[in-house]
Amino acid sequence: MAASVFGRRARLRAIGLTAFALSAMASGMALAQSHDRASIQAQVAQRHDTAVKALQEWIALPSIAAEDLNAKQGAEHMAKLAREAGFQHVEVVDTGGKPGVFATLDAGAATTVGVYFMYDVKQFDPAEWSSPPLEARIVDKPGLGKAMVGRGATNQKGPEMAFLTALHAIRDARQNMPVNLVLVAEGEEEIGSPNIGKVVLRPDVQTALKKSIGVFMPMGLQDPEGAVTVNLGAKGVVELELVADGKTWGRGPSKDVHSSLKAMVDSPAWRLVKALDTLVSEDGNTITVEGFPKPAPLTAEERAQIAKSVGARDEAIARRTLGVPRWIDDLSWEKANERLVSQPTINIEGLVGGYTGPGGKTVLPHRAVAKIDMRLVPPMTRDGAVEALKAHLRKRGYGDIAVNVSGGYDPTTTDAASKLIQAQVAVLRRSGVEPLLWPRLAGSYPGFVFTQPPLSLPAGHFGLGHGGGAHAPDEFFLIESTNPKVQGFDGAVMSYVDYLYELGAAGSGTAAKQAGEAAGG
Amino acid sequence: MAASVFGRRARLRAIGLTAFALSAMASGMALAQSHDRASIQAQVAQRHDTAVKALQEWIALPSIAAEDLNAKQGAEHMAKLAREAGFQHVEVVDTGGKPGVFATLDAGAATTVGVYFMYDVKQFDPAEWSSPPLEARIVDKPGLGKAMVGRGATNQKGPEMAFLTALHAIRDARQNMPVNLVLVAEGEEEIGSPNIGKVVLRPDVQTALKKSIGVFMPMGLQDPEGAVTVNLGAKGVVELELVADGKTWGRGPSKDVHSSLKAMVDSPAWRLVKALDTLVSEDGNTITVEGFPKPAPLTAEERAQIAKSVGARDEAIARRTLGVPRWIDDLSWEKANERLVSQPTINIEGLVGGYTGPGGKTVLPHRAVAKIDMRLVPPMTRDGAVEALKAHLRKRGYGDIAVNVSGGYDPTTTDAASKLIQAQVAVLRRSGVEPLLWPRLAGSYPGFVFTQPPLSLPAGHFGLGHGGGAHAPDEFFLIESTNPKVQGFDGAVMSYVDYLYELGAAGSGTAAKQAGEAAGG
Repeated sequence: MAASVFGRRARLRAIGLTAFALSAMASGMALAQSHDRASIQAQVAQRHDTAVKALQEWIALPSIAAEDLNAKQGAEHMAKLAREAGFQHVEVVDTGGKPGVFATLDAGAATTVGVYFMYDVKQFDPAEWSSPPLEARIVDKPGLGKAMVGRGATNQKGPEMAFLTALHAIRDARQNMPVNLVLVAEGEEEIGSPNIGKVVLRPDVQTALKKSIGVFMPMGLQDPEGAVTVNLGAKGVVELELVADGKTWGRGPSKDVHSSLKAMVDSPAWRLVKALDTLVSEDGNTITVEGFPKPAPLTAEERAQIAKSVGARDEAIARRTLGVPRWIDDLSWEKANERLVSQPTINIEGLVGGYTGPGGKTVLPHRAVAKIDMRLVPPMTRDGAVEALKAHLRKRGYGDIAVNVSGGYDPTTTDAASKLIQAQVAVLRRSGVEPLLWPRLAGSYPGFVFTQPPLSLPAGHFGLGHGGGAHAPDEFFLIESTNPKVQGFDGAVMSYVDYLYELGAAGSGTAAKQAGEAAGG
Repeated sequence: MAASVFGRRARLRAIGLTAFALSAMASGMALAQSHDRASIQAQVAQRHDTAVKALQEWIALPSIAAEDLNAKQGAEHMAKLAREAGFQHVEVVDTGGKPGVFATLDAGAATTVGVYFMYDVKQFDPAEWSSPPLEARIVDKPGLGKAMVGRGATNQKGPEMAFLTALHAIRDARQNMPVNLVLVAEGEEEIGSPNIGKVVLRPDVQTALKKSIGVFMPMGLQDPEGAVTVNLGAKGVVELELVADGKTWGRGPSKDVHSSLKAMVDSPAWRLVKALDTLVSEDGNTITVEGFPKPAPLTAEERAQIAKSVGARDEAIARRTLGVPRWIDDLSWEKANERLVSQPTINIEGLVGGYTGPGGKTVLPHRAVAKIDMRLVPPMTRDGAVEALKAHLRKRGYGDIAVNVSGGYDPTTTDAASKLIQAQVAVLRRSGVEPLLWPRLAGSYPGFVFTQPPLSLPAGHFGLGHGGGAHAPDEFFLIESTNPKVQGFDGAVMSYVDYLYELGAAGSGTAAKQAGEAAGG
């Protein structure tokens, strides 16, 4: 499902989400909690080569759940990295699938913060890369600087390594760790986190996370202009296949037969087309599944957030980059974005049936498949959406069409007023970035496991820095920035330092006050 | 389009088309024209090893139009084979595509017969074969005997080599060639004969063919029970792709984008589904394209032919072999076959759009394709059907959906009373086979170029012998039969000897009379 988060993020970034420039993080900025920031920054600089090398070593060990590759080694390496960064309790957790990692760092602080990591990466084909995907070479990126190219560089090892480096630097500078940390890491993010609950909801892990003010995932959030969007939630998603099959149907052939037989034999491919036809309106844009939960309308605040964010984004660039001449219903840029945030979707990811090679082949296929993703908004749930779809197909006489769900999440929502989010806003503002609050990411990530009961915690992403190519060839993470609007690796590390001190202060109630004074000053 | 003929033929054979057993072709059978059949048969036996070796050499040289392989070499080899078999004029014909071959054999006979060859073969993947597809090894086929396994063995080099061997044997036995021959061969049959008219309708070729009583293609027509169906025509076919594309549509993306954007971006894949939905009835079986020509109803004679043929075929075996539990509308075996013969179809050969690999991928595809074949019956034409489809899509608002036709033929019909067909019936009956006349093959072949103006000739297929696996791995042609109901290679050769003498007599008006006397005697 990470495709959703990062694909979407890459997209937002690519279409020039904001026009705000990020001022370089000044050493003289207002500090949220009493600590020697300069000393920490010096340690970050001193550790630079070590951290880059550690990131390269991590990239050299790809864990790919879909390929059953290096799960055990990846979890052990993850545990080692956590241990070295100062987590006192570190444990590989059996999930029945690929193992997770649970770790705690007790700083004796008043505030506890949850951190969500993935140690797995997306599949890759080295033939498509301009630089070997496991070698993590440093290459020049015109307009950006020197970037590390490798699978997992930005999704998610680069930002995660930057976060761990922040912990090293705070310790090396002999500064107090401002928060206690609870780390949960999984090795199945790229296959839809089927066992995330086995880690997060294990009673002792749950108890540890319950103490936290929320959970965040490190992420290089800056677009090339330095702008940062703070997402207040994400749509849910269900990925599934609709399969029409002669055998299940009891009509048509149970293997591909010669197409001339169409005159006397029913066609599962036509059946799939007819069933699909009932799911959406004539224009393909409105869900017509009976019993599908109606989406909650946007609030005035959400509309305002969208209007503000949209005003900072260039529609023409978005259209050109996506190759989309007009939005659904010829909507305005703002209304199209309201639709993006508020409306559920049923999308055809792929159609596969019969002969799919070049030219034609005269077969009557026994089976046809539509690969579907449904994006969900509150109050929909993954299970509710699947049930509604199945009931609809049954009611319309297509009960034989198999609904094979491969993964998915419920929608997730985090209050903008939560400390987790407000600390992000404070850190960004102090660094000269006016963050763009966004009501709901149209993509999806497994935040639901944190935001829903029993945990009911705020959850989000945070981090400066910049990367690209998640799930694609030549994935990269910026190491040394020559672009004054965007942070390199050390700047990303410092964003976590600042966020942790801000959270420590926010949690104890002091930093927010200090920040308010600083802003007012 | 050969897929249609041979796929269908293989199918008919596989479902046990007839229950009639073929008596072994007796040496003492009534002869249609004065000639020393025993002497010819002796030459066939003597030539056996030479002919088998020549067939192996031919198979070793595959001409594959789709892969641009060996067209020139294939045409030259075809010309050489014709020359060696006694054609006095042999010429490679430039068509703009792959070359054809035109050859004439003037025997000073009263009757001229057209012969249609293809020298090209279907693509193949050696990895799928149990025996190398170009080595043409002789292997044991339980229940049949020794068969040659190789690409083109039955489709069409085996039967064609048997026909050429008949010419050799007649000459070697110093017997009079009973007919003049006009041979047209093409190298693009497997891609739908796009240039067949460039060979057949070249003025001098046309003039030569005009003198013939009709055109036949050699083919191993016996099913494993020895039964033979005589087809009196074939459906037409159009193969095409319906393509929904964001760029052409002017809506949706012009490249695949992240699926979360479905909420604001139109989907070409949904558009394809909606357009497809308008083409057929809810059950997928009745064409709802407005303006699509209505098929001519079956005649009483056609119904009788179907009833007779169907009575000789085992429905249970057909259902089991095809894996089809019930026919369209739960029709009876006979009514289903009437539908097979009489109804046009729109079939989905394949659906291809977006992500087609294992699992899912969260994309909104910019393009989706339905591979379609339409089967046509008189009075439909290929061009008429395509025009009706295009007009329908325009009228329904889907004018942006591209209709990319890759090939096709008009339907073709040959009168059962024609000499070409009656000679087949006579030869079969004298060999103890009651031929099953079939009004219209549901598959397709380029017979239209012969049966339509300007030539307006009868056209069909003929030959004993047995093969299988056309277009599939392990294609074979039976060389030495251990099954008394089915002829091996030499028996196939003798079927052409007998057919040529029958045609010579039929053409001159004497053989039919003799045959009638023999049958009455």
